[in-house]
Amino acid sequence: MRVDGRQLNELRPVHIETEYIKHPEGSVLITIGDTKVICTASIEERVPPFMRNQGKGWITAEYSMLPRATEQRNIRESSKGKVTGRTMEIQRLIGRSLRSVVDLDKIGERTIWIDCDVIQADGGTRTASITGAFVALVLAVEKYMSGGKLDKFPIKDYLAAVSVGVDSNLGEILDLNYIEDSSANVDMNVIMTGNGQFVELQGTGEEATFSREQLNQLLDLAQEGINELFLAQRNAIGSFADKIGELPKMEG
Amino acid sequence: MRVDGRQLNELRPVHIETEYIKHPEGSVLITIGDTKVICTASIEERVPPFMRNQGKGWITAEYSMLPRATEQRNIRESSKGKVTGRTMEIQRLIGRSLRSVVDLDKIGERTIWIDCDVIQADGGTRTASITGAFVALVLAVEKYMSGGKLDKFPIKDYLAAVSVGVDSNLGEILDLNYIEDSSANVDMNVIMTGNGQFVELQGTGEEATFSREQLNQLLDLAQEGINELFLAQRNAIGSFADKIGELPKMEG
Amino acid sequence: MRVDGRQLNELRPVHIETEYIKHPEGSVLITIGDTKVICTASIEERVPPFMRNQGKGWITAEYSMLPRATEQRNIRESSKGKVTGRTMEIQRLIGRSLRSVVDLDKIGERTIWIDCDVIQADGGTRTASITGAFVALVLAVEKYMSGGKLDKFPIKDYLAAVSVGVDSNLGEILDLNYIEDSSANVDMNVIMTGNGQFVELQGTGEEATFSREQLNQLLDLAQEGINELFLAQRNAIGSFADKIGELPKMEG
Amino acid sequence: MRVDGRQLNELRPVHIETEYIKHPEGSVLITIGDTKVICTASIEERVPPFMRNQGKGWITAEYSMLPRATEQRNIRESSKGKVTGRTMEIQRLIGRSLRSVVDLDKIGERTIWIDCDVIQADGGTRTASITGAFVALVLAVEKYMSGGKLDKFPIKDYLAAVSVGVDSNLGEILDLNYIEDSSANVDMNVIMTGNGQFVELQGTGEEATFSREQLNQLLDLAQEGINELFLAQRNAIGSFADKIGELPKMEG
Amino acid sequence: MRVDGRQLNELRPVHIETEYIKHPEGSVLITIGDTKVICTASIEERVPPFMRNQGKGWITAEYSMLPRATEQRNIRESSKGKVTGRTMEIQRLIGRSLRSVVDLDKIGERTIWIDCDVIQADGGTRTASITGAFVALVLAVEKYMSGGKLDKFPIKDYLAAVSVGVDSNLGEILDLNYIEDSSANVDMNVIMTGNGQFVELQGTGEEATFSREQLNQLLDLAQEGINELFLAQRNAIGSFADKIGELPKMEG
Amino acid sequence: MRVDGRQLNELRPVHIETEYIKHPEGSVLITIGDTKVICTASIEERVPPFMRNQGKGWITAEYSMLPRATEQRNIRESSKGKVTGRTMEIQRLIGRSLRSVVDLDKIGERTIWIDCDVIQADGGTRTASITGAFVALVLAVEKYMSGGKLDKFPIKDYLAAVSVGVDSNLGEILDLNYIEDSSANVDMNVIMTGNGQFVELQGTGEEATFSREQLNQLLDLAQEGINELFLAQRNAIGSFADKIGELPKMEG
Repeated sequence: MRVDGRQLNELRPVHIETEYIKHPEGSVLITIGDTKVICTASIEERVPPFMRNQGKGWITAEYSMLPRATEQRNIRESSKGKVTGRTMEIQRLIGRSLRSVVDLDKIGERTIWIDCDVIQADGGTRTASITGAFVALVLAVEKYMSGGKLDKFPIKDYLAAVSVGVDSNLGEILDLNYIEDSSANVDMNVIMTGNGQFVELQGTGEEATFSREQLNQLLDLAQEGINELFLAQRNAIGSFADKIGELPKMEG
Repeated sequence: MRVDGRQLNELRPVHIETEYIKHPEGSVLITIGDTKVICTASIEERVPPFMRNQGKGWITAEYSMLPRATEQRNIRESSKGKVTGRTMEIQRLIGRSLRSVVDLDKIGERTIWIDCDVIQADGGTRTASITGAFVALVLAVEKYMSGGKLDKFPIKDYLAAVSVGVDSNLGEILDLNYIEDSSANVDMNVIMTGNGQFVELQGTGEEATFSREQLNQLLDLAQEGINELFLAQRNAIGSFADKIGELPKMEG
Repeated sequence: MRVDGRQLNELRPVHIETEYIKHPEGSVLITIGDTKVICTASIEERVPPFMRNQGKGWITAEYSMLPRATEQRNIRESSKGKVTGRTMEIQRLIGRSLRSVVDLDKIGERTIWIDCDVIQADGGTRTASITGAFVALVLAVEKYMSGGKLDKFPIKDYLAAVSVGVDSNLGEILDLNYIEDSSANVDMNVIMTGNGQFVELQGTGEEATFSREQLNQLLDLAQEGINELFLAQRNAIGSFADKIGELPKMEG
Repeated sequence: MRVDGRQLNELRPVHIETEYIKHPEGSVLITIGDTKVICTASIEERVPPFMRNQGKGWITAEYSMLPRATEQRNIRESSKGKVTGRTMEIQRLIGRSLRSVVDLDKIGERTIWIDCDVIQADGGTRTASITGAFVALVLAVEKYMSGGKLDKFPIKDYLAAVSVGVDSNLGEILDLNYIEDSSANVDMNVIMTGNGQFVELQGTGEEATFSREQLNQLLDLAQEGINELFLAQRNAIGSFADKIGELPKMEG
Repeated sequence: MRVDGRQLNELRPVHIETEYIKHPEGSVLITIGDTKVICTASIEERVPPFMRNQGKGWITAEYSMLPRATEQRNIRESSKGKVTGRTMEIQRLIGRSLRSVVDLDKIGERTIWIDCDVIQADGGTRTASITGAFVALVLAVEKYMSGGKLDKFPIKDYLAAVSVGVDSNLGEILDLNYIEDSSANVDMNVIMTGNGQFVELQGTGEEATFSREQLNQLLDLAQEGINELFLAQRNAIGSFADKIGELPKMEG
Repeated sequence: MRVDGRQLNELRPVHIETEYIKHPEGSVLITIGDTKVICTASIEERVPPFMRNQGKGWITAEYSMLPRATEQRNIRESSKGKVTGRTMEIQRLIGRSLRSVVDLDKIGERTIWIDCDVIQADGGTRTASITGAFVALVLAVEKYMSGGKLDKFPIKDYLAAVSVGVDSNLGEILDLNYIEDSSANVDMNVIMTGNGQFVELQGTGEEATFSREQLNQLLDLAQEGINELFLAQRNAIGSFADKIGELPKMEG
């Protein structure tokens, strides 16, 4: 039915490979279908100027795509000399989302830099980035706690993201790949925590609109998908996952 | 109860002054409480390169604030040499929203430039920009049709935007001013059409989250506020408003 | 005789609306014919690095036009990523002129930021900016003195600016509008103080020249126009105007 | 009396060495006291986009200083990634001035690029640039006419520039060196043609003002200095100088 | 003896994984010790302006590092808004080297874009980039020839690169890792073709020098290492390797 | 035989004029054939941030060409808003080379800025820059020592640079002018010290290659040319040259 044979409420295969890069405090390669993103978490022992002397930390994110992550080669933003609006939106979204599940007081005056670099793109790169970055962040925290540099566990809950959308023939669908995303009437990114709360909701009808009923169906689909992503995250994190707490109402 | 004495579901006073600037095809000064935005619509007789030879038009938007629109003076983006991420997000949002209610085939190979310049800011500048820009756009279309340069009416429906949020004491509130916005746990921008459909929904819990129940209450509040904005737009547009069609279910 | 029916030595109607924007220490909307400029004065409690520890203040200015202040839409300088040469010349001129009538020692280690934003342009935007900015500056000083933050009155004299030019048919004319400016052979901006001294004189014959006799006639015309502008400034400033001193030899 | 022993109305020694650089169509090294500027004129067989298909030419100028032309090393504008306001003002001034004495119709659809590079600075670099650039321009025209690429002589008159100023002790002085310029109350650049007309007049009282009487004395001094510069230009140009016409009323 | 136990003339383990990214015409992940670089070759059906209408093609390269490829996080060049001198040197080197072994006439008016993105760095990233990029380039050519878009084989010879250096204790060593590179007195990059010719030789003694004898020993070491890299390239390329020709004098 | 009649191993005429610019601590105009470069050395009483508190100095270089130093006018890098890759490579090379013959500990926490500005270009501008900059550097050191600001002589040895190349008809040639450089198969820059050691070796076969035998012949030629340059440097430096030491094995 869908271009790749999936059910309407079916995620693409998800794989999270941890410690993918040796230097960062935390790193993963997250693969969702043909979308692959390297997510790293780097801890810097200072905060940006606007945060100084408040005794709390900061989390900021950067996002980029390799030029040939996509079907057509993209010009590098470093060659253009500026970052596009799309990139800025995405990196602001990643940073904001991660901050919502971290107790910034508990990380002290440190900055956690999240880098999400898409090496292969097939739709859903921003949601995959958030889902992967959460794991990289937990691994970095684990490393710091193991090394005695951090004593309080600052992660308040799980965090994952998924896209949902409305296809003109199939209706509401979960986890759009690039072809589906290009033809969808409505595109929505949903970011949720382990206890079922929303962190961010961004629904867009480019040259189209959507009703309150469609919104409700999209949110139901998103919840299903995100629950599966939580399980993949828990498996990737390993023994340290217990500290984050129970994943309520999961049947996986 | 609220800092400025409003009811939880009460908009600030709205005023839309048309033909505020003499050169543009369409222009308004929209005032919502202490937020004031000059919105202009300029029609250019060509489309950007990626749209050429498709027989259809394009709508794009730019947004800026005067340096002293705010309590603290902001550095001009022209002095910095680059546009901030926040500005880029907002101008992409304005352009995307307006395109959703315009039949781009009917405007021919033309670009409509929307400029939203905030001269005084007190919260809700992006939603005021969209609400005002819609009127400027309709006035520009009217001018072109009156002048015989355009023969088909391209506006498909009304478009307005409002912010809603969750205050930790008061709960869900409509149309946040700057003080309310700064302390709100959840901030949501809702953009809707005259027939009650969503065009864009952006809900953010910076360092906070929100439940499905809260989402539903926020959407109800937003619908109320947007209905009032439609009436203000209809009054500003004048006789030409009939062409856009009925505003269903309005009691105002 | 002139395109808008004025006498050769007649200013366009001048109006200065004070406290136009609520946040800045001082602000005006100055209207001269169809030219409208928002001028604000913002006081910052520090000076730029090259002025530190000298016990005196600094005044600097920025100038910009809304994209559709003009007949043809201009590309924003923030989008271009750089400020044009014309803008730089104008903002340097505004800052330099204002500094000539302010005793910088008396404002202490503070920077006064002048922002001149043209919202509608019809010739003479730089001279209107200077004339309006002077009033905004005085209002900001008044606010600081009333609030007890400043004890010595630092304004030494009135300051106003006007353009004069040579039309190939009409000869020397005062206060050129856009059409006149476009076709003038010679364009001169004159900036003077209340006691009849020059602060700045910039005469340009783009692809033309002018004689010593023409120069003298232009300067006479400019003095007439500036005297009227001083009266408009005095009225706008109100009771505080007495502190600046007498306006000598005025008949208005 | 003056720091370098000159009379109040005395120019520094002027020397113009022609064909200083081998590649450009015209080039000079102009030396005025310790100020040394390489001026070149390059002819390009096309005009900028805004001038196309009008059958006439364009003249544009660029100005720069070597980093160590000055007492303190300046950061290169190429390293900063942007050109300063001062540089932009100067290069606009040079281009505008030269265009006033050239019949652009007679040079056809060509651009003449003027480059003024200050290799040693001691005050008056912008006026020396204009005086030298005029000679480089004439030499380039001569080369084109000798080579049969141009048949009508496009230079309408001589053009030279000088600075004058007001010293608080000495009063009005001609051709300020760097020390004099730094301490002058008033600084004025005067650009004139061979027949005694003004092309540009820029008088500035940074934190000071000047009277109508002072203006008149400054203009008299400037005329004296410029007459001497015309003679130096005529000598440098050689036999071709006759085409430009008589230098009226010169006694040198 | 060496920090990682290698012999002085021993390469680190080399692995070249082909078709690593799905979209580009050719792609590899090259691993040399802990240095990992994704190299892609993208074919664009046009050449840059300076190459048009000459009937021949062009090869150009871009190089970048993920921010956390290194021990300390690097600021992204897209955030800085400009590409560093080091990056420019490397990308010019990669492009120039590849062009030396390709018959540009045989690829027609096409550009081959080489992208080398270092995902993990441990010394020798520029030489690994060249060695990997050569394979990506051959794979892209293979794809185009298989698809009938190219009929003549344009690759003239193998191309590989290696670093050699002088350690103050050990003397001349092959294939420096990051620690060795940081402490070496002399660092030399050698790029050679399959028939034993040099394409590029860059030897640098930062705050040190080297003798003619040392140069000769370094070149001998480099030839040894490059011969091994040719074998790794041949294995990665597979059956298509025969078209490139014999690898003379190899014992591997 | 060669386009300008030189022998294969013959340098173009070399002239080094000292104290060419009055402000810098050291300055020369170096002329090699028709290539002319102004080299200055400026001493700043601080080091860049990454060098602070180490008790040692730093040497950094900048390189630029006047727009019309070349046959075709080049766009200024300040107008482009960025420095090209070629310029960055050259300035890094100049700085690195000079640092190799200076004992940075002996200059204290100071930065020596080297500026090389090409006023006329005919091939070999980067090697002429290095050869000239060495002299400017020695003169600046001399000035500081004479003035008592420096007590230890920090220059360890002579430093000069030359280009060599392979012409398809003539074989190996010394000191290529622009025409030779444009048509050479191989281009190599060699930088050596007075005691015959290499500092930098950069050989490039753009779309060509070179053998080990050719490399050896090129290095022999380079040594010959550099020995002559050392003599020209010694003559320019004057009595202070003795401090640098003997120039071994010179027959000139």
